[in-house]
Amino acid sequence: MRTIDWVPAQGDSPEHIRLIDQTKLPENLVDLRIDSVDTLIDAIRRLAVRGAPALGVAGAMGVALAVRGLPDDPAADPAADRAARAEIDALRAARPTAVNLAWGVDTALAAYDAGGPWAALEAALKVRDDDIAACAAMADRGAELLARLVPGKPELTVMTICNTGALAAVEHGTALGVIEKLHTDGRLARAVACETRPLLQGARLTAWELDRMGARYDLIVDSAAAITLARGGIDAVLVGADRIAANGDTANKIGTFAVALAAQRAGVPFLVVAPESTVDVATPDGDAIHIEDRGTAEVVDFHGVRTAPAGATAVNPAFDVTPVDLITAIVTDTRVVDTAAKETPADKPAPAGPAD
Amino acid sequence: MRTIDWVPAQGDSPEHIRLIDQTKLPENLVDLRIDSVDTLIDAIRRLAVRGAPALGVAGAMGVALAVRGLPDDPAADPAADRAARAEIDALRAARPTAVNLAWGVDTALAAYDAGGPWAALEAALKVRDDDIAACAAMADRGAELLARLVPGKPELTVMTICNTGALAAVEHGTALGVIEKLHTDGRLARAVACETRPLLQGARLTAWELDRMGARYDLIVDSAAAITLARGGIDAVLVGADRIAANGDTANKIGTFAVALAAQRAGVPFLVVAPESTVDVATPDGDAIHIEDRGTAEVVDFHGVRTAPAGATAVNPAFDVTPVDLITAIVTDTRVVDTAAKETPADKPAPAGPAD
Repeated sequence: MRTIDWVPAQGDSPEHIRLIDQTKLPENLVDLRIDSVDTLIDAIRRLAVRGAPALGVAGAMGVALAVRGLPDDPAADPAADRAARAEIDALRAARPTAVNLAWGVDTALAAYDAGGPWAALEAALKVRDDDIAACAAMADRGAELLARLVPGKPELTVMTICNTGALAAVEHGTALGVIEKLHTDGRLARAVACETRPLLQGARLTAWELDRMGARYDLIVDSAAAITLARGGIDAVLVGADRIAANGDTANKIGTFAVALAAQRAGVPFLVVAPESTVDVATPDGDAIHIEDRGTAEVVDFHGVRTAPAGATAVNPAFDVTPVDLITAIVTDTRVVDTAAKETPADKPAPAGPAD
Repeated sequence: MRTIDWVPAQGDSPEHIRLIDQTKLPENLVDLRIDSVDTLIDAIRRLAVRGAPALGVAGAMGVALAVRGLPDDPAADPAADRAARAEIDALRAARPTAVNLAWGVDTALAAYDAGGPWAALEAALKVRDDDIAACAAMADRGAELLARLVPGKPELTVMTICNTGALAAVEHGTALGVIEKLHTDGRLARAVACETRPLLQGARLTAWELDRMGARYDLIVDSAAAITLARGGIDAVLVGADRIAANGDTANKIGTFAVALAAQRAGVPFLVVAPESTVDVATPDGDAIHIEDRGTAEVVDFHGVRTAPAGATAVNPAFDVTPVDLITAIVTDTRVVDTAAKETPADKPAPAGPAD
């Protein structure tokens, strides 16, 4: 199962993007066919596709879609080139906090500039294939790190928030990819998944993935993470990232910061697992990260059920920033940044690796 | 508007308890007529009536209901006396974490033992009237304390969790009673209410009360409290309590501990506001507080909308314990315990006050 993929032209059907509509899970596993950048932007905005790595792939494939059929030389049809670039700009801005979307867009756009539409598509397919390899590398690296951080325990109980599984990537996930690796290796006692309000990606998507992989798990409401950690029994917390600043401050799904505070209080290792493409050394620290506010409706309305009086307003930051002093280590596809030992992503450059 | 009250016999209608069915809010303001202890236990279990002070009143009035019509001398009808005491034991155990329920039951039961059914009813009505007076005293004391803790600010922005308003008490609330007092005095800029998963007492009940009082407010998902506090702009956090241990550790609605961790990180005062009846000096500290788990259904199902795959299980602690080192002060109806200066509820006895 791939969360997002490129479907070549077949018979009358032109090439297009296929992605799982995550708003329909866990009830229904439904594919969306994406034939235009507008449709893709809409799918991104309403979170039919979400998760940092998947957004990178979506961004790159969106560029391939935008320039599909254009001449190799933009000067041959400048109006079409301009129209495509306007679509690409809108695509890049569809989710402001997630760096991977812009990164995927810019990667494929650079290829288009250098080699035309075919090069853009090749770049997009490489982003997809690199993500698959990067997730495998993160899973190995994360599982090894856990063996060092929690020595002598054959089976671990781990906590996570949001969805960082296959649904957030292409074939396997980041933080949930590590948990899947523990499960496959017989080293997972139990996963505790935070439900992740307001859109419940933990309850809807992570639970669905854990169920499919046959892992033992329990859901908790997000606000129960603190006492669950304080009571003991959780060996590590594993989370993804939407943007990692040069100093290691990490933007991730709203609620991550609160879990990190509770993990620190309980003395439980807190690991960020994300591909190198999430590291943004141009952003010095968390204060420089713009946080998207997604408005009132998501908070006061759940699948058509009203949760608050008419007229109620909500502040709805989609992400928060976990300060680096609460993070034990950052695991990427090419390295482990030992933030507990004051290493930062900026002062320890990434070696060449599968994501390069 | 009284959340819970005793209705005397009128014509053919025997005396009974009337209470607002809080499961129907914010859509509908509906009264429940409670004619039996069984019905009352059911109402308590499904949270039609909830909130520490209201549970104290419910417990005391439940005893009055159980012994209604019994002879003053139990020996005159030992079977009826035994049956009533069995009902009273079940009532006391309906919510294990909330100390006020047991306290209200025991207060009215002691009166019955000493003076029969009429004395039990008098005691229950005194619990009700004392709560009204206690909430007024807490509102004054809390507002004064805030003026000292946040000097020179004419209007405050405060955060709260769960519902600690009139709906949690009789006529006015505890923590939300302080916020109402700020609003009445023109000192409230804005309230930020955590929605309070799983049962959304903040979104459903606190928003409803703030709306009725005409206060400015915003809702947030519980997990957004940390970044909201970190960003600045919140002057104080005010929460209620279900049980305060001798050392000051405080059991309250799940999520309170996480908000307290975030408030400490942000340097924002964190106040517990609760009547003296919530202080349980027989419980030495938080480790000794039993935490009620309310099971999977509340987490995976919201008003009939499923939030997780079939077969998903949840751990659902209804309360957590905020360690006293995260609490700036405990405000009761008779005193302020300056926990930031290492005072504890046990080593600074309460003076005589309206709740005695």
